Amino acid sequence: MFSFKTLSLCSTTRARTGEILTSHGTVPTPAFIPVGSQATVKTLVPQEIAALGASIVLCNTYHLYLRPGVDVVRRLGGLNRFMGWEKPILTDSGGYQIFSLASLRQVKEEGVLFRSHIDGSEHFLTPEKAVGIQQDLGADIIMAFDEPPAYGQKKEKVEEATERTHRWAKRCLNSFSNKEQASSADTPINREQAGQALFGIAQGGVYPELRQHSARHIASLDFSGFAIGGLCLGEPKEVMWEMVEHTVSSLPPEKVHYLMGVGSPEDLVEGVARGIDIFDSALPSRVARNGALFTRKGRRNIRNAEFKEKDEPFDPDCDCYTCRTFSTAYIHHLFKAEELLGLRLATIHNLRFMIKLMEDIRQAIQVGDYPGFKERFLERYQPTNEEARLIQKRGWLKERQGVNGG
Amino acid sequence: MFSFKTLSLCSTTRARTGEILTSHGTVPTPAFIPVGSQATVKTLVPQEIAALGASIVLCNTYHLYLRPGVDVVRRLGGLNRFMGWEKPILTDSGGYQIFSLASLRQVKEEGVLFRSHIDGSEHFLTPEKAVGIQQDLGADIIMAFDEPPAYGQKKEKVEEATERTHRWAKRCLNSFSNKEQASSADTPINREQAGQALFGIAQGGVYPELRQHSARHIASLDFSGFAIGGLCLGEPKEVMWEMVEHTVSSLPPEKVHYLMGVGSPEDLVEGVARGIDIFDSALPSRVARNGALFTRKGRRNIRNAEFKEKDEPFDPDCDCYTCRTFSTAYIHHLFKAEELLGLRLATIHNLRFMIKLMEDIRQAIQVGDYPGFKERFLERYQPTNEEARLIQKRGWLKERQGVNGG
Repeated sequence: MFSFKTLSLCSTTRARTGEILTSHGTVPTPAFIPVGSQATVKTLVPQEIAALGASIVLCNTYHLYLRPGVDVVRRLGGLNRFMGWEKPILTDSGGYQIFSLASLRQVKEEGVLFRSHIDGSEHFLTPEKAVGIQQDLGADIIMAFDEPPAYGQKKEKVEEATERTHRWAKRCLNSFSNKEQASSADTPINREQAGQALFGIAQGGVYPELRQHSARHIASLDFSGFAIGGLCLGEPKEVMWEMVEHTVSSLPPEKVHYLMGVGSPEDLVEGVARGIDIFDSALPSRVARNGALFTRKGRRNIRNAEFKEKDEPFDPDCDCYTCRTFSTAYIHHLFKAEELLGLRLATIHNLRFMIKLMEDIRQAIQVGDYPGFKERFLERYQPTNEEARLIQKRGWLKERQGVNGG
Repeated sequence: MFSFKTLSLCSTTRARTGEILTSHGTVPTPAFIPVGSQATVKTLVPQEIAALGASIVLCNTYHLYLRPGVDVVRRLGGLNRFMGWEKPILTDSGGYQIFSLASLRQVKEEGVLFRSHIDGSEHFLTPEKAVGIQQDLGADIIMAFDEPPAYGQKKEKVEEATERTHRWAKRCLNSFSNKEQASSADTPINREQAGQALFGIAQGGVYPELRQHSARHIASLDFSGFAIGGLCLGEPKEVMWEMVEHTVSSLPPEKVHYLMGVGSPEDLVEGVARGIDIFDSALPSRVARNGALFTRKGRRNIRNAEFKEKDEPFDPDCDCYTCRTFSTAYIHHLFKAEELLGLRLATIHNLRFMIKLMEDIRQAIQVGDYPGFKERFLERYQPTNEEARLIQKRGWLKERQGVNGG
């Protein structure tokens, strides 16, 4: 039920278009995956997410494992039915959240002992359990349980985490295969599990030889797709892209390449040129809730006085519900008045911006003009440090640590 | 452009059905008016409000006057266009908010000097100005500027406020007529103003003779409809209904009767029996955001553990989007996880509950069974003190004072 094929290749970069087929539908790639950490893309209903053009969403295993609990989701018919989303779902393994969010008690070879950030309760997660949870949730794409080393750690620590990630990857695969074989088709969830795909994650920190080593090792295992983990954690952008290049060059071209937790519009344009097929990031919806709306020229803060009486759509070229329905002045008013509807309208705009950007990227690759598209986009698009500072000030860092996700 | 006609009368109570015609459409009565204080029914877009069956919304003059400012709304084409709502709008006069929310500096015969709760800026509002603001906002139904005496004030204070309300009512009418005559049809807003209607407000506190006196006085003036103000402010329910009866019996039956700021489902059922045609209240959406969802048996707190795995709509008989789309367990999860989508789904349910209740009430009156409907409804519906306490604990009182409205 799961397959991937590339459809067109850029002749001068690694950019390519393709299609991921799952039992819940097709994901045209390159694709941006909106984040719905707690089984909800914040503020939106499933019909709105589909109307954005999203073909897949991501949910966080860590969050759902703790609340409402895997058994609850399973008994309610799986994640798709629980959240009312009919299209594909990717779940992360919980590794990243455990290492960045929970109070970490102990990493053992067997697994990780941690405390819930919600109620302090103690949990022990193993590669086998992480895979089982995601199978029970009913995700289409499930991720191997990994140990992402924090940015700035010593090389031997990163090496240790990377090697453990490799051993855990093998255990995830074994567990996945066993469970797959054991599945009978007598429940809807089991039938869905037949179509599940397991992706491996390459680590390696910011060390080129570790990245290459990890990519080669993970690529040698029988995963349906490959992710690059442990990036966008504070390292300079050029280091991130160097690591991506070291990894992608060792991955099989016929499999999906997934850059986890990335990123901003300019990151997606850069990542596609380096052979990335799918991206996920909570950034577009998070900054939306802080009032930072995307345009092709960069982010704009909707609270700025310049928007107070602007009787035009925020972006006249945007086809999102927000821009088609309301004046910029109205959205400005909602943010100034701290109205919840503002968060929703801004989320719709930013997510549509990302998904439309991917549509344009696919189109450019298909017509053989990706290098030109990329140059024109990056020439116009100005990442604003000012915005970054503003977002940090408003508690972005706390959110980034993943409390309540997305 | 504005008219009201009664369509059917209950033979044993004062209940009646009718129709308010405005230039933005028809309001079947009895009607519940959702509150959109700051030009937004919190969390919802106009299409959703219409889908609830709402035929009219209320906006707060006080809030819009302070932010974004009347000139901004006027320049952007009026309130309907600003908020994307095509149906009728009723604006209050700002009186209630000024007396309950702003730091009140001084009540003079000329008007009220007050400080904004947002930035402390000083403002002077007069009856003439309050009418002019509402005309500029482009509301279909605009309210006279009144002085609602707080519950518990001495009789002479209430009498003073009531008499000033009477003098201000006359000034509102004069100002409204003058402006109406002066309006030319050269702007969209002016054309809309031609269809505006001005309603008077009767006061009188909790003193029967003052209520009767005020009702008779206001009824003698040439208003298009009549409101009962200064109730639901902490007085016992039986006192409120006694005051409503004293007022309605003195109002012309051929005009709209509006009970301001009321209320809960059981209040609407009781109010209709006493001849009330329209009600507004932020209560249904406010308690929704606190997790209290209406059923025909009373409110239920969606956070309760009993809902954790309930794989059925919250109310299987409800036709709202929330109940048609999601399990109770999912809404429970959203509230436990403090997800914004929960506030939205609960708001949809409670507002649809109120509007469906009014549809059922109109139907019962039309078929001549209102007393039976009322008895059956009140027998089943249990107002819960527990809920009320919960809501207070969660800061309801602060919200009730009207910060950010709705």
